[in-house]
Amino acid sequence: MTEARVPSDIASRARRLKLVLTDCDGVLTDGGVYYSARGEEMKRFNIRDGMGVERLRNLAGIETGFVTGEMSPSVVRRAEKLGIVECHLGSKDKAATVREILSRRHLAANEVAYIGDDVNDVPAFEFVGLTACPSDADEAVKSAAHIILERPGGQGAFREFAEIILRARMARA
Amino acid sequence: MTEARVPSDIASRARRLKLVLTDCDGVLTDGGVYYSARGEEMKRFNIRDGMGVERLRNLAGIETGFVTGEMSPSVVRRAEKLGIVECHLGSKDKAATVREILSRRHLAANEVAYIGDDVNDVPAFEFVGLTACPSDADEAVKSAAHIILERPGGQGAFREFAEIILRARMARA
Amino acid sequence: MTEARVPSDIASRARRLKLVLTDCDGVLTDGGVYYSARGEEMKRFNIRDGMGVERLRNLAGIETGFVTGEMSPSVVRRAEKLGIVECHLGSKDKAATVREILSRRHLAANEVAYIGDDVNDVPAFEFVGLTACPSDADEAVKSAAHIILERPGGQGAFREFAEIILRARMARA
Amino acid sequence: MTEARVPSDIASRARRLKLVLTDCDGVLTDGGVYYSARGEEMKRFNIRDGMGVERLRNLAGIETGFVTGEMSPSVVRRAEKLGIVECHLGSKDKAATVREILSRRHLAANEVAYIGDDVNDVPAFEFVGLTACPSDADEAVKSAAHIILERPGGQGAFREFAEIILRARMARA
Repeated sequence: MTEARVPSDIASRARRLKLVLTDCDGVLTDGGVYYSARGEEMKRFNIRDGMGVERLRNLAGIETGFVTGEMSPSVVRRAEKLGIVECHLGSKDKAATVREILSRRHLAANEVAYIGDDVNDVPAFEFVGLTACPSDADEAVKSAAHIILERPGGQGAFREFAEIILRARMARA
Repeated sequence: MTEARVPSDIASRARRLKLVLTDCDGVLTDGGVYYSARGEEMKRFNIRDGMGVERLRNLAGIETGFVTGEMSPSVVRRAEKLGIVECHLGSKDKAATVREILSRRHLAANEVAYIGDDVNDVPAFEFVGLTACPSDADEAVKSAAHIILERPGGQGAFREFAEIILRARMARA
Repeated sequence: MTEARVPSDIASRARRLKLVLTDCDGVLTDGGVYYSARGEEMKRFNIRDGMGVERLRNLAGIETGFVTGEMSPSVVRRAEKLGIVECHLGSKDKAATVREILSRRHLAANEVAYIGDDVNDVPAFEFVGLTACPSDADEAVKSAAHIILERPGGQGAFREFAEIILRARMARA
Repeated sequence: MTEARVPSDIASRARRLKLVLTDCDGVLTDGGVYYSARGEEMKRFNIRDGMGVERLRNLAGIETGFVTGEMSPSVVRRAEKLGIVECHLGSKDKAATVREILSRRHLAANEVAYIGDDVNDVPAFEFVGLTACPSDADEAVKSAAHIILERPGGQGAFREFAEIILRARMARA
């Protein structure tokens, strides 16, 4: 795997990060939603992304938050498992959700990163200091993100973003 | 991703559309059917296709309908979630189902599009104005469809079709 | 997709076929077995393979049978849905199972085809007239099969085999 | 498929093996964890890896053990199905778990192999005689393992490792 395109000032951006916000469907999953006769039944997350959440927390003191437009109980369960500090479901205006989080937590834009895959994620990009998207994101998202990752959603894109942040901070030290 | 092959008169075809009909298995899914000891248990849909349904409705006033030969309760649940206006299960003659929809809704052929992936979808192509298939469709379907999409079934083929329609209408305006 | 390697005498072999026997895991599925806290929970079949079973029956009068070493209730449910005439679970000696089927149904070897993907399928190849394997089969199976299909297990390999048989019979007529 | 990189002394290493230890998520699975409203619901194993466990046991008298950092009941069910002799869940220090197994079973390092995919597997590599990782393992694991397999996790990586061991032992005989 070749290295993802990373902005030259990533070190300075990564140095200040305190929170990474992530969309769920299409980033932590491959976009798949499993339906049964009971309706939405399951989503498929990736164990390596979970380790990315842990490593951000344990190695750099960076917490992770979920921001999703859907109302999926499976996402809540996954957030509980990973100790996610902000879990926002049913967000129809992700930019507003991101701004509310920053305001309430007294965070500056350059202390927050955001990763998303679809057109409804792009407005949120404006309010954070570092943005990324999976390799299979919508073209509009690819054009707007600082980093287009090598891995697609659900196959380690979040982990790849986490490792880029961790490497940048270690390079600084 | 390269651009899918799109007919040069797509703009005029897309201009008149009021309804997009879609097969389910192999278009909204990758053809997978999950069986348990209880029989057919789940199907895997894609969140981005769902956003395609919403964007067709919100940006262009185009509704979406499902036409499937199977009798899957999971498809009914997905249709409810997305506000699908026509949901036809167990259709053994998809051309007849399409004709019945057009007749009842007083729609002309060029006001309707259809996307399908297998040989039983081809007869329906004759009664609509614009047709498409996923990249992994049966060869007979690829030969018959106006547009062979870049994405396979279950991985955003419907969304890609929706965006082609939306772009064509915007180019017109 | 390029054409799979097909023996030149496929037409004469396909002409006599009355029964196609298929392994399940790795042919009708991609080898995946979904476990929950209750044990084996689900397997993922493919809707297009189901249409292959129907087309063999309706267009050529050829029935389909399942021969698997596993004891999966999900396989029984799938067999019921498709009207499978022979469904053998827990076969630890597939050659013996195939011979028993041929004997009981008074079928000659050249009236039966077999598709499998792993080393325990190879001994059964000896007792039928036409054999095939998915593109991702074990190397020992690839070496032994008449036809190495283009598609992997669970992604239409059975359907591809069915269509090769149907085309060969039509070419004859 | 090309042959995986195998150390030239594999025959001597494989000759002594009595136990193969494997990580679960990312080796026996593709890293996917399926969540429902009830939390972690399922994991997807591969039937061919199961045959690898059986073949190691039946053809070479080599047993298999699971060492995972997670607490998944689905892993316990899979272990029961395959007759796994050591099944260690919730291991936060895999090197310690491996050392405990060796000590209790009176095994020397060169009688044990280990396959893993992520950074928390690497410390365990030091205490065994032969190590491997799936093709999609973390870069740090690829650098540390004796063998980088051709197949990714969940798609037969364990089986490929088992066959390499079996071939090496047969070459010896």
